[in-house]
Order: sequence, then structure tokens, then C-alpha cells
Amino acid sequence: MKSAKNYIEENKQRFLDELIELLKIPSISADPAYKKEIIRTAEAVKTQLEKAGCDVVQICETPGNPIVYGEKIIDKNLPTVLVYGHYDVQPPDPMDLWDSPPFEPIIKKTETHPEGAIFARGSSDDKGQMYMHVKALEYMVKTNQLPCNVKFMIEGEEEVGSVSLGWFVERNKEKLKNDVILISDTGLIAKDVPSITTGLRGLSYVEVEVTGPNRDLHSGLYGGAVANPINILCDMIAQLHDENNRITIPGFYDDVEELSQEERKKMAQAPFDLDAYKKALGIEDIHGEKGYSTNERNSIRPTLDVNGIWGGYTGEGAKTVIASKAFAKISMRLVPDQDWEKITELFQNHFEKIAPKSVRVKVSPHHGGEAYVTPIDSIGYRAAEKAYEVSFGKTPIPQRSGGSIPIVALFERELESKSILMGFGLDSDAIHSPNEHFGIWNFLKGIETIPQFYHYFTKLSK
Amino acid sequence: MKSAKNYIEENKQRFLDELIELLKIPSISADPAYKKEIIRTAEAVKTQLEKAGCDVVQICETPGNPIVYGEKIIDKNLPTVLVYGHYDVQPPDPMDLWDSPPFEPIIKKTETHPEGAIFARGSSDDKGQMYMHVKALEYMVKTNQLPCNVKFMIEGEEEVGSVSLGWFVERNKEKLKNDVILISDTGLIAKDVPSITTGLRGLSYVEVEVTGPNRDLHSGLYGGAVANPINILCDMIAQLHDENNRITIPGFYDDVEELSQEERKKMAQAPFDLDAYKKALGIEDIHGEKGYSTNERNSIRPTLDVNGIWGGYTGEGAKTVIASKAFAKISMRLVPDQDWEKITELFQNHFEKIAPKSVRVKVSPHHGGEAYVTPIDSIGYRAAEKAYEVSFGKTPIPQRSGGSIPIVALFERELESKSILMGFGLDSDAIHSPNEHFGIWNFLKGIETIPQFYHYFTKLSK
Repeated sequence: MKSAKNYIEENKQRFLDELIELLKIPSISADPAYKKEIIRTAEAVKTQLEKAGCDVVQICETPGNPIVYGEKIIDKNLPTVLVYGHYDVQPPDPMDLWDSPPFEPIIKKTETHPEGAIFARGSSDDKGQMYMHVKALEYMVKTNQLPCNVKFMIEGEEEVGSVSLGWFVERNKEKLKNDVILISDTGLIAKDVPSITTGLRGLSYVEVEVTGPNRDLHSGLYGGAVANPINILCDMIAQLHDENNRITIPGFYDDVEELSQEERKKMAQAPFDLDAYKKALGIEDIHGEKGYSTNERNSIRPTLDVNGIWGGYTGEGAKTVIASKAFAKISMRLVPDQDWEKITELFQNHFEKIAPKSVRVKVSPHHGGEAYVTPIDSIGYRAAEKAYEVSFGKTPIPQRSGGSIPIVALFERELESKSILMGFGLDSDAIHSPNEHFGIWNFLKGIETIPQFYHYFTKLSK
Repeated sequence: MKSAKNYIEENKQRFLDELIELLKIPSISADPAYKKEIIRTAEAVKTQLEKAGCDVVQICETPGNPIVYGEKIIDKNLPTVLVYGHYDVQPPDPMDLWDSPPFEPIIKKTETHPEGAIFARGSSDDKGQMYMHVKALEYMVKTNQLPCNVKFMIEGEEEVGSVSLGWFVERNKEKLKNDVILISDTGLIAKDVPSITTGLRGLSYVEVEVTGPNRDLHSGLYGGAVANPINILCDMIAQLHDENNRITIPGFYDDVEELSQEERKKMAQAPFDLDAYKKALGIEDIHGEKGYSTNERNSIRPTLDVNGIWGGYTGEGAKTVIASKAFAKISMRLVPDQDWEKITELFQNHFEKIAPKSVRVKVSPHHGGEAYVTPIDSIGYRAAEKAYEVSFGKTPIPQRSGGSIPIVALFERELESKSILMGFGLDSDAIHSPNEHFGIWNFLKGIETIPQFYHYFTKLSK
């Protein structure tokens, strides 16, 4: 019987070619102009699931973008793994910082990836990581080694908050029934330090609009006498953090889970090189909440970041104008026990309250989701641990991540099953940034590791 | 001999048609893409000066946009009036707030202008006001009533800081020799309250760039641990004003001319209706430096306004990104005795100083100019006063304006002559804003008033 390693070696060029075709379609969910590309991508995923060996594949309509569902049921008495992934991608902006066009994938060698990496939007997040599961299925089916049932649910709205996924899951509980949910939308600590993500932050994303005068004004004639909405917006944003970089919204920290000293001590043992971190980002100094380490700040602590700001004249040269309006997109990362809807409301009330009378403020919630922590004694976790041990020769480290996959909490609530986050990307993959890439080594290592998970999950479930 | 009133009545349709042709050319000096339109506009101004009766008209090359020079010298022993104006215009952004396209002039009636107003970018600032002088010359030449010599200097870089004008003036002192400089680039208090602008604010305009990490980052993976340049920029901008809305840059107020209680009392007598002001701007409350009135805040006090801000994701929907860079355009209006170059340097030093170590800051000065105050006992002022008295039937009020025409100080220094600011626009003309317009009544009243200035200036100069 053929080993995964051999099968991958024989087919790796085809695997890469297929992924590259998928990466060429600009499935940007944030911009309605790309709706057609979204549909094309869903269809391409469907075709690939069929080819990989699914017996049933459907493009399921939702109020938003379609969800691709696939399944191969070999025996109702065997356990079922539900693979979740997404085929939509982040917008590629700012375009001028890409070294090659975001939807014309190319393979380049880098210091981290001497075997080469695929550069394209979505190469890691999440088309590349999702496609590892499709190819792992192909291997198991073609070599008659699929040990259990498998279902796929690949959505097209993850980057805009999985708006329709809840709707779909609620209506398809029977269809989606499973024993474990397997997700690759996170990363490894390093190529030689495998890790399993056991915690995710929640999210609340809002857009704010500050309106001053009813039209743009000449800054000479009105400057100094009328509230400037840009200055006011800056002022209000500045007020959202105190001098210790704690968020000032009343009640914001009320439900934050505080880790014990022991847990924090354990976390602090994870390898972390501050100088290398600063060097990789090109920064002189780090910046964050007083009293917490970098690893704590971006995993167990909630945050507030402005993701975009605009107002007034932003073209070439100078325009002496007082803008009528200024805007910002603001997101908060949340930790376990913070309710994203409550936090959104707290933000809204506070932001309206700190606005001076000279302006009007509008806060529009975009989307959000709860934080999540998974236990490390479940069958799913233990199966993942074993899988990494076999393919990496090392026991993976449980790791809390700063990112958010809000649907993990939804799955637990609606489908009553635990999610296992087996990511194969790296922090340096530049997901959500220009020049996103995914190492070929990582891609193939994922395809090699996943079948081991199926094997151990089935075995441990008996 | 024909009166100006009659001549205007007979020719007003042609005057308007000619102005409309001039307004159709998008002479936006801030954007190099419009260089051709700049040249076309200069040529159109040259043609009109020739037609109006100038004996010599030249398009004078400069390191930047050309300056149109014209003259009609009737007798070297008579005084010479130098008319200054500009043919360039502000960028029309934001385009979507214009009710009609900015370079397709249309005439519409408004509450303030029941006789109609021309809506177009540059209609008031400054093509319309500049063109009053061309038509006033035409009237005086065609009816043999030009009482003195006249020179025109119409530039194409006023909206970007008159970069080349100093260069030109320094090299053409003899050519530009004059007894008074006449400028219409300001406004009247109201149609029935004529005023002469006796003070202008100076300007320092800078662009700032704040750089955090060397690339855009995922806000989940890095949020809370790395300085977000947008948050930092907001913080730094917020720090530029204190709780009394005074500017916090050390040394900023050192040279500010403080008016006596008596002078402030006199200023306070100018008609001002706070409720009407707030209503016209659609604001609930005014906002400015503690201890000063609205009229003081926008004329005798220096200010700092953000004219534009941008960074991160500003498109549709949501993107969870920490931007690598954030930008702002910031301008300071200055008052007499503040040196704009010194203020620019103070800003630069302060802004760099308040930046945390976690970001890098770049401050790029755009342009600037000194504030100006003109005496009210000069021949020029008295001639202007007389001119308004004849055409408006009222003595004009001397008024300090909040705007800046930095070249006025340059003219005084290089050409040793005083400038007289006879403006005919209104604050409600929306200059620098969408839907800029210029009342037909104001346009024609300007053409009627200007020849009176020539008459009295020549008479009083004897």
C-alpha cells in the first residue's frame, strides 16, 4: 500500500498546478464587484471535490455567497470528520506593494522557504490550506485508505464575517452531523515547531462616521471656529486607549478571562525571540498593554485597532479644506467570555458619548464573533497530536492564537462538536498583506499529516 | 460718456458667456495630470487681456506654471495699478457632492442670489473675481476712461502655494513696478455690507507619514502587540491641541500679535449672528480656542487643522489589517508676526519628538506664507473706500480675514507696494468646496466698482 509521502512525491506538480488555477480567480468577498468570481471559485471547488472522490457534491445557495458541500460516507457506524474551510480571500490592497500581481500566482524561493513558496492572495489563507484537505482525501480514496466518513463545508464569506454560515448551519444540522470538525486556517509556530491552535480571539468590527459642518469648508475662513471632524475623530480614537494602552470603554474588561500565574508561566515557555520579531517587522520597539508580554498581548488579551481611516483631501499636493466628514474602520479582538454583541454595544454607546456637541457620530456594526478555547484532552486533540508526531517527529505545542475564526463557537453551539485547528501556515506568510505566500513544503506537509489525523481519530474513537 | 452701469447692462450676457468658457477648463494646479489645461487657461487669459485693451500681453515661463503678464501704459507720469489674480483652481474633490459637474458651469438661482449664480470650480476663487478686472479694463479702455496705467499679473499656482511667483517677482521688479496692487480674492461681509480685507492669515502646510511595521499585518496575529500607525497618528494629532483647544507645539504662540482690549471691542461690533452661522453650517455647536469669539478664532488667532487623513483599508466592507503606514495633511493658519518657516520647523521638531519609539515619522513641508495686515490710512485704502461708497452707497468695513494670500507679504517686500484686497465674493460661495458658485450680482457689481477705484486712486495720488 502506497504511503502518503510516495503518493505526494509522484503527484506534487499536479497538486501545485491545480492550486495555482484556483488562486487565479479573485474571489474577494468584501467587494460585491467580484460576485461572479466568487461563483466561479465555488464551482472550481465543487469540481475538485468530485475528482478527489466525494460521492455527493453540492453548491448550496445562501442569502449571501454559496457554500460548497461534499461528502463521502463509507459506513454509518464509523466516525465522521467535517472539514471546514473557505474559498474567499481578503482584498489585495494596497496593490502597489505587491511584487507580483496577487492573482497571477508565481513560485519563488525565500529564506524561510528554500523549496519555494506560492505567492498569491489566498495562497495560505485559505485556498492553499483548504486544498490540502482535498488532496489528502484524494490520496486516501485513491489508495483505499479512507478509514472513516468525511464531509466538506467550504464557505465564501469568511473574510467578511461568515454572514450566511450561521443561517446555513442552523438549517442543515442533520446533513452536517459529525464527530469532529477539522480546520486548517491557522499556523505552525515554525517549520520545526509544530503546534495546534487551542484558542482563538473573538471579534467586533465597526465603522464610524463623524460629521461636522454640512459641507467641506475653506480652512482659512472657518479654521479654528468650527469643529474639524478629522481632528475630532483623531481625538476620539486617541481617547480609546489610556496611558497604559488599556482600552477605556467602560465595562470592556468586565468579562475578560484572567489567566492564572501558572498558566501565564507555562505560556512564557514558548520560544520567542524579541529581537528577531522586531527585526522581521522592521520596528524599533514593540507597543502594547502594560503588564503583558508580546505573546500575551496578541493572544490572551483583547485589543482595539483602527483598520482604516479616511477623510478630507488625500490627493496630490495641498488642499486647504475642512472636511464635512471623517471615517474609520475599527476592530476589537476579544478573548474568552467577552460577548461580541455586548462589546459592540459598549463601543457604540461610549463612542457616541465621548463625541463633542459640535459633531454628529454614527457607529455601524459590521460583524463579529466569539472567542474560543478548545480542551487538549479530547479525542480530536489527541488524534491531531499523534498525526503531527508521525509526520514531524515532534509533539505539537498547544497554542492560543490572536486571530479569530468566529464560526468555531457557532459550530460548537449548533453542531455540538469540537473543532480541531491544524494549521500549516507560518506567521511570515503575510496573510491579509501584500505578497501573501504559502510554502510548498508546508502545503505538502499538510497533505501528508492530515491522513494520519483520520487514522488516529478513527482508532481512538473505537 | 457711458457709465459703467450702462456698459455692463449692454454687455452682461457676453461677460457671462466669456467667463463660462474660462470656467470650463479644469486648471487644477495640485494635480500634474492637468498641466495641459493649465497652459490652455493661461492662453485663454492672454487672449482676453488683449481683447480688453492691453498693449502688451505675455505668457511668462517660470520653473512651474506660466504667469500671464499684461499692461497698458498710457502715461509714465501717471500712477500704475498692478492687478494680481490667479487662473488655477482647487481640486474639485469630493466629486460626488457636486450637484452639477464642476467644469460644466451652470447658472442657478439661490436664496442668496435671486439674480442667479454661476456654479463651477473657480467661479469665485479666482477666475470669476479675476475676470471682473479684465472686464473693468475693457469698459475703461473702450469708453476712453482709463485714468492711469495698469498692469496684470495672473498666476497659475496660487492654490499650491504660489511656488514660482517669488522667483518671477524677484526677476521682474522693474517690469512689475507699480503704485498699488489690487487683488480680488476675498469677500464681502454681505451683499449690503461692503468690506475691505485688511488682514490675512499666514499658512504653514505639511504632510506627515507615520510608519509602523514594514508591511501591512493581520490584526488578529499582531493586534495589541505592535504599534498601529493609524492609532499612533490619531494619538499624535490629538496631542496637538490641549483641553482649551490651544495648540501645544512649544513656541507656537511666542510671536503671536495680541490685540488690545480696545481693538477686540471694535471687532466685536461687526454684525454676527451665531444662530444663523450654526444653522448655515448644520452644526449644533461651535468649537475653538477658549477665550475667543468665533470672529476672533477665524481671523486674529492661529489654528491647526487636519485637511486630509488616510491609511489602511478604506474600501467596501471589512479588512482586519494593521496598516504599515498612515498619512495626514495638516495646515496651520498663522497671524501677524508668526514666521511661517519657523512655525514649520517647530511643528516638525515637535511632531518627531512626540512620536513613540515604535514608529518612524516623516514630516514634509508643502508650502507656506506670512500673515499680513494693511493700514487703513493709505491712498489705496482710501480709494477703495470711496469706490465702494459710490457703487454700494455705504462705507465699507475694514475686516481681518482668516484666509491666506501669502504673496501679499512677498509683494510688499519685493515690490515695496501695498496690496488692496477688494473682494466681491461671499462666505457662502463655497470656495474650495463642492458647488462653488459666484453671484451674478457680485460679478457685475465688481466690474462696476473697480473703475471707481482707478478714478479715486489717480485723483488721490496727485
